[in-house]
Amino acid sequence: MENGGAHAAGHSAAAVEIYPLSRYYFGAKDAFPDKDENPLDRIQRLKSNFASHGLRTCVLGVLLVELFRHPHVLVLQVKNCFFKLPGGRLRPGEQDVDGLKRKLSRMLSLEDCAINDNWQIGECVGMWWRSEFETLPFPYPPPNSRRPKECTKVFLVRLPVSRQFVVPRHLKLLAVPLYQIHDNSEVYGPIISGIPHLLSKFSFNIIDDD
Amino acid sequence: MENGGAHAAGHSAAAVEIYPLSRYYFGAKDAFPDKDENPLDRIQRLKSNFASHGLRTCVLGVLLVELFRHPHVLVLQVKNCFFKLPGGRLRPGEQDVDGLKRKLSRMLSLEDCAINDNWQIGECVGMWWRSEFETLPFPYPPPNSRRPKECTKVFLVRLPVSRQFVVPRHLKLLAVPLYQIHDNSEVYGPIISGIPHLLSKFSFNIIDDD
Repeated sequence: MENGGAHAAGHSAAAVEIYPLSRYYFGAKDAFPDKDENPLDRIQRLKSNFASHGLRTCVLGVLLVELFRHPHVLVLQVKNCFFKLPGGRLRPGEQDVDGLKRKLSRMLSLEDCAINDNWQIGECVGMWWRSEFETLPFPYPPPNSRRPKECTKVFLVRLPVSRQFVVPRHLKLLAVPLYQIHDNSEVYGPIISGIPHLLSKFSFNIIDDD
Repeated sequence: MENGGAHAAGHSAAAVEIYPLSRYYFGAKDAFPDKDENPLDRIQRLKSNFASHGLRTCVLGVLLVELFRHPHVLVLQVKNCFFKLPGGRLRPGEQDVDGLKRKLSRMLSLEDCAINDNWQIGECVGMWWRSEFETLPFPYPPPNSRRPKECTKVFLVRLPVSRQFVVPRHLKLLAVPLYQIHDNSEVYGPIISGIPHLLSKFSFNIIDDD
């Protein structure tokens, strides 16, 4: 952001440093297999997990880079079709931050098991709730006091000045500008398209190459 | 929120206490006059202010009450038509919190000038930017490095257990549920309809009457 803008934001805005996309390196690793043959299998699996473990908790990471002086979000594209944020389901008893580090390493690092791959997990910027596994998530708990089935927490991940991302071959990692995902739930789904809202309280310090 | 939900949200969620609508009292006071005859006058006034003072900064308050065990936002309806949050433009040099207290008192208190009417202004939860006065605001600064014309900051206001609201007669104060404003930009405009996103990182402790 321009200095003028950062100043205008005043003391109330927390600053996030973001670095140019050109500072990062991208590689590929073996794909990992699908857990489900089709969407119905998936729903069945989620229901059976809910019966055993209760509320399903997912953790997702928002990773930001700069391009054309505008923040871009790193999103994963699955099968040239839908988009998701890196992250996934917590294991029973697992802490948010530990689970997110594990998932980020699995999806973005050379070594799957490098859980402490220096991921710097920042604050939780939003939570989404599903009252049924088949329905859309909402940014508030179900109002009719039905037991929610799934809670998805979105965390801001602070990237270092430079690093390598190694992505499984069945996924593509894309940098998408905030202005493209904003209000574009049709293409990116409600969670990704809501990221500009969740980040709007921050001011961005763009650290230039030059 | 149910205890189960609050627990599920874990340590990452900040808690906000909200009280039933029935704890609050509502009265009316004299209307205050419109600044502008019509929308064109308004644009002209904003442009001339921008020429004199630069970036226009607005501060808005999100005030929450509970009804049917779901958070409701207090919104003002103007002329049975459009909706806005209590707040308004900062005077040149005025601090965010001081300006918001002044505006809240003007719109919601018996005494216009009771600036320190015990308003407890919480964190800034989001910022909206306009690159032109005629265009919609976006939850990020204009990407093409044009100078923004307006920045609107949205603050969470913590209400006490009980209080009186005194509203000018040309405005109506309504409590609207999060599920009604979510994704409903057509009726409530982009800023109000985005509030559920901005609040989604909080868990709500509903303090019951009984």
